[in-house]
Amino acid sequence: MRSHWMPAAPGDRLQDVDTPALILDLDRFENNLERMRKAAAGFNVRLRPHAKSHKCVEIARRQMAAGAVGICCQKVGEAEVFLARDFADVLITNEVIGERKMHRLAQLAWRFPQARIGVCVDNADAARRLGAICAAQDSRLDVYVDLDVGQNRSGVATAAEAVEVARAVVACPRFTFMGIHAYAGSAQHRRGVPERRAAVEAAARKAAEVRAALRAADLPCEVITGGGTGTFIYEAESQIFSEIQPGSYALMDVDYARNEHDASAPKFEHALFILATVMSKRGDRATLDAGLKAFSTDSGLPAPTFTGWQVWSVSDEHTVLHRIGDGPSIKLGDKELLVPGHCDPTVNLHDWIVAVRKGKVEAVWPVDARGTVF
Amino acid sequence: MRSHWMPAAPGDRLQDVDTPALILDLDRFENNLERMRKAAAGFNVRLRPHAKSHKCVEIARRQMAAGAVGICCQKVGEAEVFLARDFADVLITNEVIGERKMHRLAQLAWRFPQARIGVCVDNADAARRLGAICAAQDSRLDVYVDLDVGQNRSGVATAAEAVEVARAVVACPRFTFMGIHAYAGSAQHRRGVPERRAAVEAAARKAAEVRAALRAADLPCEVITGGGTGTFIYEAESQIFSEIQPGSYALMDVDYARNEHDASAPKFEHALFILATVMSKRGDRATLDAGLKAFSTDSGLPAPTFTGWQVWSVSDEHTVLHRIGDGPSIKLGDKELLVPGHCDPTVNLHDWIVAVRKGKVEAVWPVDARGTVF
Repeated sequence: MRSHWMPAAPGDRLQDVDTPALILDLDRFENNLERMRKAAAGFNVRLRPHAKSHKCVEIARRQMAAGAVGICCQKVGEAEVFLARDFADVLITNEVIGERKMHRLAQLAWRFPQARIGVCVDNADAARRLGAICAAQDSRLDVYVDLDVGQNRSGVATAAEAVEVARAVVACPRFTFMGIHAYAGSAQHRRGVPERRAAVEAAARKAAEVRAALRAADLPCEVITGGGTGTFIYEAESQIFSEIQPGSYALMDVDYARNEHDASAPKFEHALFILATVMSKRGDRATLDAGLKAFSTDSGLPAPTFTGWQVWSVSDEHTVLHRIGDGPSIKLGDKELLVPGHCDPTVNLHDWIVAVRKGKVEAVWPVDARGTVF
Repeated sequence: MRSHWMPAAPGDRLQDVDTPALILDLDRFENNLERMRKAAAGFNVRLRPHAKSHKCVEIARRQMAAGAVGICCQKVGEAEVFLARDFADVLITNEVIGERKMHRLAQLAWRFPQARIGVCVDNADAARRLGAICAAQDSRLDVYVDLDVGQNRSGVATAAEAVEVARAVVACPRFTFMGIHAYAGSAQHRRGVPERRAAVEAAARKAAEVRAALRAADLPCEVITGGGTGTFIYEAESQIFSEIQPGSYALMDVDYARNEHDASAPKFEHALFILATVMSKRGDRATLDAGLKAFSTDSGLPAPTFTGWQVWSVSDEHTVLHRIGDGPSIKLGDKELLVPGHCDPTVNLHDWIVAVRKGKVEAVWPVDARGTVF
């Protein structure tokens, strides 16, 4: 259930927004989109932003207006939300395993026959099963072989396996074999430029080898897609990847901001914040009304946007700040902004994104695909 | 938005439930409720379970049938959900700060005049502001002075402060001053019995002192409420607390299971699980389709219910298992149960609870108050 309670309305001042609320700074967000548009255009690489980061139709529309060729989703339920809102090119960058899920995906492709819907496979039997369900449902899918390029999570490990899986794909008449999905997930948060670059160069070499093996087996491989906010420049530079999939660049978070960058790399700014109210105050302690149900801490604590106070502890509904210096005083009822540690699971906690420009609410957008775990 | 996609229907077998899904083992859940009912009755203490742990009307109804006198909520939005579903006695165990929130609470009390609605205060100015809003709204609230008993998060620190705040409360004609809220939150997860007992004994002494000071100031103090799953026995034994507020006992999690207990303490069993599907398999690695958007990791990783495999890594939508011994083999498509590290923020990620008995789905309950951050 989406809460009917909305934290704000257009025209409200930021300090009147109910808390805890997810705040999107529109100026920064638009700058991030424009910088990514320029970067992708400069490298002549297709930009397919990952919607799992924001799960928001309005944000994805703005990404499409800023040069995207389509979007990525991670779950069938996410794809369903975006397809139902007229997105015409959606790639599920994940394996879909299980009878219910496969049937749901096949039904989705049947409901939206004009859309391009892609999905990843890393197992020949699973590909055949999905192909049989699509045949029974009379629906078509674009299919990518998922290649493990160091994430050690999913994907085929070798060119021989890729050929075996791709053969199973082309044997399904309702499938169009598209190419290789090669996402170097574990490389995204390596802090140094040389480490990230080296990880992607290795991933690109492996993807090129697999493409050669596929071609040698007469399995055409049109697309190689991958890359996230931490590495997309290196995928784009590689001349191997034809498509990049960054997500977090639009919003940013504490974790991604820790990465080091070349001076020439596009700068993405924190555009996503948690607004919280001081709900208790005693001496040098101030307690905010936002906790683990308003932001995730899997990649570290949220960062205050103000000086002189640090996050001391976080619990389900509270964040305790302690004074550590000569920052501004904080009083009961004050509203403060925090930068979340990790944007994706933080956005997933909220029903609404409050879009703000220069301290004024411009719009309140639903997080349309929040909670689509299936 | 609640996803319209339901992971299961009554009569389904557990292995046919779509994943990742929140599974409630009904036999264990009912045992937990019965053990708490007996414990509270034995101590002759009022039982007011905390609904923030499960946010589910059906679970709260069963708690009411198992001896509860009412429920606790943490947010105005949660209280709204339960009041709208005919719960007649709801205590918000938290301060409500901010104009929008205060107006919403006053409106809620106006909409449900037959219900008892309680709230905590720790500041005299805030109490007066809420009292003025209630007067304008023509609505009544039960008000508790929140006492800090070692949590260092909210609450008045001293008896003198408590008297000052309680005076502000009794000066508001629409408020009924009820007593003291004294939750020893930081004591809940101290592992040893002596540490938890000592923390609660100190809390009880402080609450008794404050009650004496309130009485001396002619401020009657009917209720002292507090205690969670980790400590409720000690609050109940203290003869100071008249009411206990445990939440997690109904579901349990890895974190609470780490506490040590006296042999005489009621045993609560893991009743809450995440069901996940093996969506990729390579050698001694199996990847599940549940990650940070299906369970929280703030209090540690989820625990497999099967042997021979360990959780190696967790990302937004995936959990990677590595084989560590001679456990059962795992194959693509298998469904596995994990015990979440921390139940409250895990339940908050889901729209549905799949209630299962002996491997069969008995019901699918909405998580009615999911996402009520306001």
